[in-house]
Amino acid sequence: MAKIKVGVAGYGTIGQRLADGVALQEDMELVGVADLMPTLSIRALKEKGMPYSLFLVDGADKSKFDELDIPVSGTFEDLVGRVDIMLDSSPGGVGAKNKELYVKKGVKAVFQGGEKDSVADVFFHGYANYEKGLGADYLKLTSCNTTGLIRSVDCLDRAYGIEKVAITIIRRVSDPGDYHRGLTNALQMEKAPSHQAVDLMTIMPHVDATGILVHTPVTHGHIITVVATGKKKITGEMALNAFKAHPRIRIVSIAEGFLGNASLFRYARDLGNPRGDMYEIALWEDSIVESGGDIMYAINIPQESVTIPESIDGIRAACRVQQTREEGTAATNKYLGIGKWK
Amino acid sequence: MAKIKVGVAGYGTIGQRLADGVALQEDMELVGVADLMPTLSIRALKEKGMPYSLFLVDGADKSKFDELDIPVSGTFEDLVGRVDIMLDSSPGGVGAKNKELYVKKGVKAVFQGGEKDSVADVFFHGYANYEKGLGADYLKLTSCNTTGLIRSVDCLDRAYGIEKVAITIIRRVSDPGDYHRGLTNALQMEKAPSHQAVDLMTIMPHVDATGILVHTPVTHGHIITVVATGKKKITGEMALNAFKAHPRIRIVSIAEGFLGNASLFRYARDLGNPRGDMYEIALWEDSIVESGGDIMYAINIPQESVTIPESIDGIRAACRVQQTREEGTAATNKYLGIGKWK
Amino acid sequence: MAKIKVGVAGYGTIGQRLADGVALQEDMELVGVADLMPTLSIRALKEKGMPYSLFLVDGADKSKFDELDIPVSGTFEDLVGRVDIMLDSSPGGVGAKNKELYVKKGVKAVFQGGEKDSVADVFFHGYANYEKGLGADYLKLTSCNTTGLIRSVDCLDRAYGIEKVAITIIRRVSDPGDYHRGLTNALQMEKAPSHQAVDLMTIMPHVDATGILVHTPVTHGHIITVVATGKKKITGEMALNAFKAHPRIRIVSIAEGFLGNASLFRYARDLGNPRGDMYEIALWEDSIVESGGDIMYAINIPQESVTIPESIDGIRAACRVQQTREEGTAATNKYLGIGKWK
Amino acid sequence: MAKIKVGVAGYGTIGQRLADGVALQEDMELVGVADLMPTLSIRALKEKGMPYSLFLVDGADKSKFDELDIPVSGTFEDLVGRVDIMLDSSPGGVGAKNKELYVKKGVKAVFQGGEKDSVADVFFHGYANYEKGLGADYLKLTSCNTTGLIRSVDCLDRAYGIEKVAITIIRRVSDPGDYHRGLTNALQMEKAPSHQAVDLMTIMPHVDATGILVHTPVTHGHIITVVATGKKKITGEMALNAFKAHPRIRIVSIAEGFLGNASLFRYARDLGNPRGDMYEIALWEDSIVESGGDIMYAINIPQESVTIPESIDGIRAACRVQQTREEGTAATNKYLGIGKWK
Repeated sequence: MAKIKVGVAGYGTIGQRLADGVALQEDMELVGVADLMPTLSIRALKEKGMPYSLFLVDGADKSKFDELDIPVSGTFEDLVGRVDIMLDSSPGGVGAKNKELYVKKGVKAVFQGGEKDSVADVFFHGYANYEKGLGADYLKLTSCNTTGLIRSVDCLDRAYGIEKVAITIIRRVSDPGDYHRGLTNALQMEKAPSHQAVDLMTIMPHVDATGILVHTPVTHGHIITVVATGKKKITGEMALNAFKAHPRIRIVSIAEGFLGNASLFRYARDLGNPRGDMYEIALWEDSIVESGGDIMYAINIPQESVTIPESIDGIRAACRVQQTREEGTAATNKYLGIGKWK
Repeated sequence: MAKIKVGVAGYGTIGQRLADGVALQEDMELVGVADLMPTLSIRALKEKGMPYSLFLVDGADKSKFDELDIPVSGTFEDLVGRVDIMLDSSPGGVGAKNKELYVKKGVKAVFQGGEKDSVADVFFHGYANYEKGLGADYLKLTSCNTTGLIRSVDCLDRAYGIEKVAITIIRRVSDPGDYHRGLTNALQMEKAPSHQAVDLMTIMPHVDATGILVHTPVTHGHIITVVATGKKKITGEMALNAFKAHPRIRIVSIAEGFLGNASLFRYARDLGNPRGDMYEIALWEDSIVESGGDIMYAINIPQESVTIPESIDGIRAACRVQQTREEGTAATNKYLGIGKWK
Repeated sequence: MAKIKVGVAGYGTIGQRLADGVALQEDMELVGVADLMPTLSIRALKEKGMPYSLFLVDGADKSKFDELDIPVSGTFEDLVGRVDIMLDSSPGGVGAKNKELYVKKGVKAVFQGGEKDSVADVFFHGYANYEKGLGADYLKLTSCNTTGLIRSVDCLDRAYGIEKVAITIIRRVSDPGDYHRGLTNALQMEKAPSHQAVDLMTIMPHVDATGILVHTPVTHGHIITVVATGKKKITGEMALNAFKAHPRIRIVSIAEGFLGNASLFRYARDLGNPRGDMYEIALWEDSIVESGGDIMYAINIPQESVTIPESIDGIRAACRVQQTREEGTAATNKYLGIGKWK
Repeated sequence: MAKIKVGVAGYGTIGQRLADGVALQEDMELVGVADLMPTLSIRALKEKGMPYSLFLVDGADKSKFDELDIPVSGTFEDLVGRVDIMLDSSPGGVGAKNKELYVKKGVKAVFQGGEKDSVADVFFHGYANYEKGLGADYLKLTSCNTTGLIRSVDCLDRAYGIEKVAITIIRRVSDPGDYHRGLTNALQMEKAPSHQAVDLMTIMPHVDATGILVHTPVTHGHIITVVATGKKKITGEMALNAFKAHPRIRIVSIAEGFLGNASLFRYARDLGNPRGDMYEIALWEDSIVESGGDIMYAINIPQESVTIPESIDGIRAACRVQQTREEGTAATNKYLGIGKWK
């Protein structure tokens, strides 16, 4: 079978990681990435020797790239014309505009969570509804928090059945290096219910979900607490067993030294992962407690990289590379090295 | 009736506020405060002209106070000998040692949350178990988070009956001006269940409680989310009505501009409250959501000042100034100006 | 002599403190304050019982105030019509527009640092160039950092003569309660030279100044280090003696417990200062070091309140209440309680 | 010539990076690393497949490593017995104790900045005093701030002659993942002069130096401002030209997007550098300003990795691998890939 040809629109925090992830898939070919400006990320690409071809989106000023001796391989339209599917991680709203070109060229696309749901035929999560994405032309991925949250809820749901969840999202407010937003010595509320709870219900319509989100002035990962009500009582041990079997959930503990989101960031750096990224969510074994018949636990969401595996699952589903959830996610995991450590 | 004579041990973050609170009670007399070192707080007391008499605890070096022209009114034993009851906000563990003197002198005491439960006869909360404190010699107050949390849970419980709660504590890690502890760009987990949930069950033994606590690098107030299961379904409207009637709960909303804990700190400063303190917890109206049969909401805990009213309630109960919860808390509220704004 | 009638435009962080400061001047009358929206600060004014009359600027929707039972005393034009001088702390740029009305009504004004220099006849600092403000119609005050910096440089200059300064501003990025800007785990550079150095040269044209500014994610005060070159060598002791004699400079030390900007904020709260404000800059005695012939030291700038005294000096100069720098600043200091503690 | 055999004591933040750096030197062999506990860094080493052999220091409990299936290659004494030189990055004070074994075994060592100066024969910096290290048995490296600072001052000094510097260190308070120390919403002063200025004078005794250090609540790099007085006037252009020629100084600008320390951390991550580390200091072109006859500029110190090159220079000097500063630093740079991008 020929390799799936993939392009990436937007070479920012997510786009870079999508490109790196696709480049690792032996059954895919990364044709190139597209962006507008010679950002620091593009300058770093240049300094690395242009491992990926760069295409310029509409409105880009090529002379700015020429001044910096950054090689340009063509226009955005050139890129779209050479691929089977686009991963679109453009700034919110731009993806909807890009879609016109994708439709015109007959190219599929996976959009990130910043776009409106209406941009896509299917709101997608690799583990929770892979089948819905099969053969679809336009998928929209769940956002970072929702992606990680659903991994854990879907995991319990498939094992024991889940009726409802109430979540508290302790959200990191910006990524390392972000200067365009921030919060200083403040926690910030968002009107409840949080969109992540609402989105979970779209993907898992048989589950009732609500939640409260609080922004915190940190950069290295969101933490979510989940109170889950099972169809029958789920004990701490039952929950832990299910979580341990999930390739994209890493069980950690305070006792081992994983004191919080920053420990996980450091650990991923020490592992030598590029950029200190981690594809797995972490779940604290010593956070699991029973609340009457309910189960409560806490997870860590590495916001910069957590959606990469499910995005690649999306390619597999849309292009029918694998026909089942089990095969699709397993292929992604193998090429990304997920679960190797288990 | 003669005024109750009160002393304060430990003139730190809590001790200063206890002293200020007692000084406002027209049926109490603040005899003095005791401390060990000429800290910044003691220097500020001096600069203000010594509104409170200062006594020195064992081990204090009086010459250090003399050098700074700080007047000293006597020893800790002198202070204890002149009061009916001590509010002990010494560093954790010191209160237990102080108790020996209180017992010897036949003086009652209210300890703060940093002491072990065994220091006291009654683990006390003004609204939840005032009656248990009546006539008791040694009370220990709930900690700041537990005090504020119980206000809200007790409020719902008295109105509608509560079976269980699952809480997430988004904890501020230090107070403004703290340099002896801190957290930088990190969220920190604590082993579940959090002690606040356990403590709630001690005060309200008919309620099942569990919870997860996460430290965050901020100073202006903890935020707690609560998932509460009623004996019957509690709607958002029912919950709001109960909360609105509670004198020590202030209903706020994001829409008004109360975006988080820092808005509340600023508001209390703008109110002209000494030190920008607030005695009420805040409860976000736009955080209240229903989760199946459960109710979920978020509260803000002004950690420096929230325990002051319940500590003064403790004096009222221990000294039998008022015989009932309603009368005791009402007297405290009146003198502290709580609920005036309602 | 009749009291000077003063109005305040913009009841935000600075405006509230200007109003409080004017209200303390026994030879001035605060006629009222003006704002656009029922912000939290206005709600707090209401909750305090409207100690100041409120006027609405153009574009305000009075019905929003009516809904909240906030009494309104008239329009902005009404306010301007009743005063001798306006303190304008409107958002940057609005002051220039307001000036049209001031001119029309023949009312003087003192603008804050956010306005362009061209709005005013004189760029003003109470200690450095009081005489230039005498009888002027429109003054613009130096910004918070520049105001505090100039206090210290002017102090050394008058005592010993200063030729040049090189400053490093470690800037707090937002005020407590600010949610519209912030920085998370990042230091941020600004293009050198910093405007504060440039502004210093405008006020003190015989001094050569340059500097670098770095934003830091904190809220409780800027810290500035100054390397100053005297006309002759200034020793550490000489510098300390001059600083000690300045009413608006408070000498502190790490040894006493003043570990940084947050200690000063806490100290001002413990002093019972409204909002925990402080009018003085702090200067660390144990930061003073000699660098060859130069002198180096560090100061703390309480950004929310530091410009209040110099703003009131501006009223005194513009309205010729006092004819000299010594008398003008002394009157302001007396009514604000500055230097009482010395 | 046989490869220099190197061991690393202490596999923490610095030790890991020393090991990685040595492993890249084609004329050196990393024999192994030693530590006490199965920390997260050791667990990551295990998860990576043990690229480095692990030895256990005295007091280590081997059973704890066995439980985790972490292979152990021997004792600390075994490691020291197999090497020519140790890089000692043990916790402060432990290096002095380790030295007894090094002396006994006739093994040279390079200590990090946490040890007392007395542990070593030479206080060393690869660029500033390579010759002093030639053939020495025990070197102590300058600390991270001092190492980076000296790069820039030595650079100007060799080009134009420097008489004196006055520095302001805006210090990051902890590393990413540190939970044992931190600062929250506070700047913290240290008694002046800072040790970095004093240390600079030890390494460069012909330069007069002083400085003030302020801790800030961030993790991604210190920023230092330097006011330098040349033997003759150094213009901005002269300074920039000298800096541009230095292999371990990277010229950046705000205009390009390098807004602060967090931009540099992000850039190093985007470059794919392991852990997002960077060996170069950054120097902001748009921070260079003239102050009378002086020159002022700002640099960024990547605290986790900046001392690695100079530590390896130390091996080269101590073992006389290269006889001159130029050859020694050039070899280190070549193997670490420093300056490739210039």
